[in-house]
Amino acid sequence: VAAVDLNADLGEGFGIWPLGDDEAMLAVVTSANVACGAHAGDPSTMRRVCRDAAARGVAIGAQVGYPDLHGFGRRFIDVDPDELADSVLAQLGALEAFARAAGTRVRYVKPHGALYHAADHHDGQAGAVVDAARAFDRALAIVGPPGSLLLERAERAGLRPVAEGFADRAYRPDGRLVDRRAAGAVITDPEHVARQAHGLAVEGRVRTVDGTEIHLAIETLCVHGDTAGAVTSAGAIRSVLADAGVALRPFVDR
Amino acid sequence: VAAVDLNADLGEGFGIWPLGDDEAMLAVVTSANVACGAHAGDPSTMRRVCRDAAARGVAIGAQVGYPDLHGFGRRFIDVDPDELADSVLAQLGALEAFARAAGTRVRYVKPHGALYHAADHHDGQAGAVVDAARAFDRALAIVGPPGSLLLERAERAGLRPVAEGFADRAYRPDGRLVDRRAAGAVITDPEHVARQAHGLAVEGRVRTVDGTEIHLAIETLCVHGDTAGAVTSAGAIRSVLADAGVALRPFVDR
Amino acid sequence: VAAVDLNADLGEGFGIWPLGDDEAMLAVVTSANVACGAHAGDPSTMRRVCRDAAARGVAIGAQVGYPDLHGFGRRFIDVDPDELADSVLAQLGALEAFARAAGTRVRYVKPHGALYHAADHHDGQAGAVVDAARAFDRALAIVGPPGSLLLERAERAGLRPVAEGFADRAYRPDGRLVDRRAAGAVITDPEHVARQAHGLAVEGRVRTVDGTEIHLAIETLCVHGDTAGAVTSAGAIRSVLADAGVALRPFVDR
Amino acid sequence: VAAVDLNADLGEGFGIWPLGDDEAMLAVVTSANVACGAHAGDPSTMRRVCRDAAARGVAIGAQVGYPDLHGFGRRFIDVDPDELADSVLAQLGALEAFARAAGTRVRYVKPHGALYHAADHHDGQAGAVVDAARAFDRALAIVGPPGSLLLERAERAGLRPVAEGFADRAYRPDGRLVDRRAAGAVITDPEHVARQAHGLAVEGRVRTVDGTEIHLAIETLCVHGDTAGAVTSAGAIRSVLADAGVALRPFVDR
Repeated sequence: VAAVDLNADLGEGFGIWPLGDDEAMLAVVTSANVACGAHAGDPSTMRRVCRDAAARGVAIGAQVGYPDLHGFGRRFIDVDPDELADSVLAQLGALEAFARAAGTRVRYVKPHGALYHAADHHDGQAGAVVDAARAFDRALAIVGPPGSLLLERAERAGLRPVAEGFADRAYRPDGRLVDRRAAGAVITDPEHVARQAHGLAVEGRVRTVDGTEIHLAIETLCVHGDTAGAVTSAGAIRSVLADAGVALRPFVDR
Repeated sequence: VAAVDLNADLGEGFGIWPLGDDEAMLAVVTSANVACGAHAGDPSTMRRVCRDAAARGVAIGAQVGYPDLHGFGRRFIDVDPDELADSVLAQLGALEAFARAAGTRVRYVKPHGALYHAADHHDGQAGAVVDAARAFDRALAIVGPPGSLLLERAERAGLRPVAEGFADRAYRPDGRLVDRRAAGAVITDPEHVARQAHGLAVEGRVRTVDGTEIHLAIETLCVHGDTAGAVTSAGAIRSVLADAGVALRPFVDR
Repeated sequence: VAAVDLNADLGEGFGIWPLGDDEAMLAVVTSANVACGAHAGDPSTMRRVCRDAAARGVAIGAQVGYPDLHGFGRRFIDVDPDELADSVLAQLGALEAFARAAGTRVRYVKPHGALYHAADHHDGQAGAVVDAARAFDRALAIVGPPGSLLLERAERAGLRPVAEGFADRAYRPDGRLVDRRAAGAVITDPEHVARQAHGLAVEGRVRTVDGTEIHLAIETLCVHGDTAGAVTSAGAIRSVLADAGVALRPFVDR
Repeated sequence: VAAVDLNADLGEGFGIWPLGDDEAMLAVVTSANVACGAHAGDPSTMRRVCRDAAARGVAIGAQVGYPDLHGFGRRFIDVDPDELADSVLAQLGALEAFARAAGTRVRYVKPHGALYHAADHHDGQAGAVVDAARAFDRALAIVGPPGSLLLERAERAGLRPVAEGFADRAYRPDGRLVDRRAAGAVITDPEHVARQAHGLAVEGRVRTVDGTEIHLAIETLCVHGDTAGAVTSAGAIRSVLADAGVALRPFVDR
């Protein structure tokens, strides 16, 4: 591969409460998944992150989630698909206002937390995310797990599916992520993160928790902005990819 | 005058809780001030009202307010102007997503409740509403009280100011509304509402609570959708204006 | 049986939005399940309903639910049991403050909506409701479906389990309620409601949707305050039980 | 003086977002103002802080505020006094549930942020805080600025007024705090904080921003838990008071 995208969850503070280091992460990623106020983020944070992302040529995506600030979108909610689509549409619209004010626009949609996992297999909720994106802008890409129902639904709806790999999360042999609450689910050692990033981006494979290696074709690599050492890990990823001659750039044209 | 606009606050339900009769009101008004989820409204309600308004050729405006569902936007909040502008921008964006999905777009901004009153005289907050509207779309009109700081700021910013009269609210001699909590502040008698509408729309004047008559040049008439007999009052207004040969149509081109 | 309790969900308005007719229902029920602000209700509503219930000798119970105003607590949320117990405890405490201010106290806990259904079979969530109640006051009763995990857990924890029947909801042959979203799930015909109430309270049985009759031993009858004709239905229940010589009184001593 | 109380705002995180170091602060203060979920805090945080405070013999007070998570209670809201009293009562009840579960109870009420400042001079809102406290428990103390309307109303209502001084905030010559948004409003130098604490606690006076010294009789000293170096400052206060032979203990009996 000649290039890969590096994305991170940004703009996840709320009111007085910050989360992660948005500015530092914007210096290392090529795509920013900006929280839209439902499970994290607020208007002023959206404005600031969109402005800074635009200034750096980082592509802006909508990090959409369940309307659940208290649970940070990490608790599955059995929302009716029509209502979920409406919620996603409202989140998209809110973020677009700030992207537009920053002279750019929202380029993709990536579900967050429990919605990310639900959209992997829950037909109604996967469809809701895709329907909302399609109603908003048919040029939007959809980011999700390789082989997921979400990407299948996106493709069927005529939206570009973008498969994602995680540099800092442990994989199960079935290609899914180890549950965040399990020990070892989140990889914090920068060297390990960089090695996994190289495997995913360059070779299209990853070593799973049981030691087997599986194939995963991905277009974008996710590194979390809210984990300890996120900025360091992202820097390590940049180095290892540079050494491999792989450029980092947004999967969408800026 | 040949024509006047008739606007009402719509989409003010939240979740399981309805408010007013959106469908009936959409049959009688020419402009719909749709709540954007901050002080009232929710994504599914926005979608439904935008769809129905578009189907009827009713112009869609953003009814923006303080982020205060519990207080329905009726309590003044001393929000920092920059944060308020960000909140208004997010509200505009959310509503625009549904207007766009309905094949149309948001045409104007009207502050709600305590923000409407603050924007009459509070420089920072009036400016915040105008700044947000301008950042979003310079073609947006701003609806507010005649002679208000809000309309003055709108004009200065190059946005179209639209002066509004209330058919169903009592006026003070200074041209301001009697406080909603005072006795007689809300006019519920349809005949009285129609008479006041005729005075405002045709003659540009209104009788105040102390019996004097004042001049008020207005382009749009507001009738509340959440008061008892709102639909009846709106029908009475239509009749009295039809008799006077005044057409009802949106102040913006559809 | 000599007596049965009649309970209803009350205090389910939020801010400007009312729901049901609390005053009228308080005149016909013997126990009030008062919403505690998480899925419905707000402080001023709690105060008013507690005051009026106390004045009429109606027992006050805590209608606890998922923290989800927008979904009215009707959407299952996969909340961690410890966090759910904390939420229920906060809800109990808030309501107790108003019960205390009205000269009485909270006497029982009844989960609402999706939590009611989850507590029927979800071990962690059933346990969370019981744990919170027990931590708050060991004299609290727990209201739930006969045969549910919730009541089993309550009994094991030393709290009084109170089995409940629904006068206005259709039953499945397994003794569970027909899903609220299914046709015929909610019974609105007052005569039908009264007949089912009589069957449940006097004979301990109910006819299910497939025509079979099942046995259900119950101590309290629920009639919903938010359905059309709720007050009429409650009146019909009172009549049919009076005719059968069954007194209506709270299952707890006032 | 033989003894003084040292209080801090604790439990101000929300969901995934922490704020300050509750555990470290509990090791140095004698009274904990615990946020009750309206402007900060959530049920699980309340439980944890109440449990830890009880274990250390730190007195628990209710840090009550406007219902405004996004604004952290720092924006004045023109809430109707009756509604404000209801909100404060609900906050008190929620916190009491966790205090009770920890084997203790809420001992005092301290308004937070913009409500603290409003209660200094706003008659309706000062009265609302006092009314709610009195309705809940006549043994509650009220913490506020010396000479404030809040303490005057508390005394008149038969509640114990407790005057408070700030070790880490700059004072104006009129005895009020310099606005938090002004430069120099928050004192972060531990030595300066300790000196001001000594002046307030031992001598009953403080040097104001214009260099004059004023008298302030106080019973409790506040040190903020959310400022940089809060724990260090609190430690410095303990040292300087120990050197002066002044004991630190809660103003209420534990």
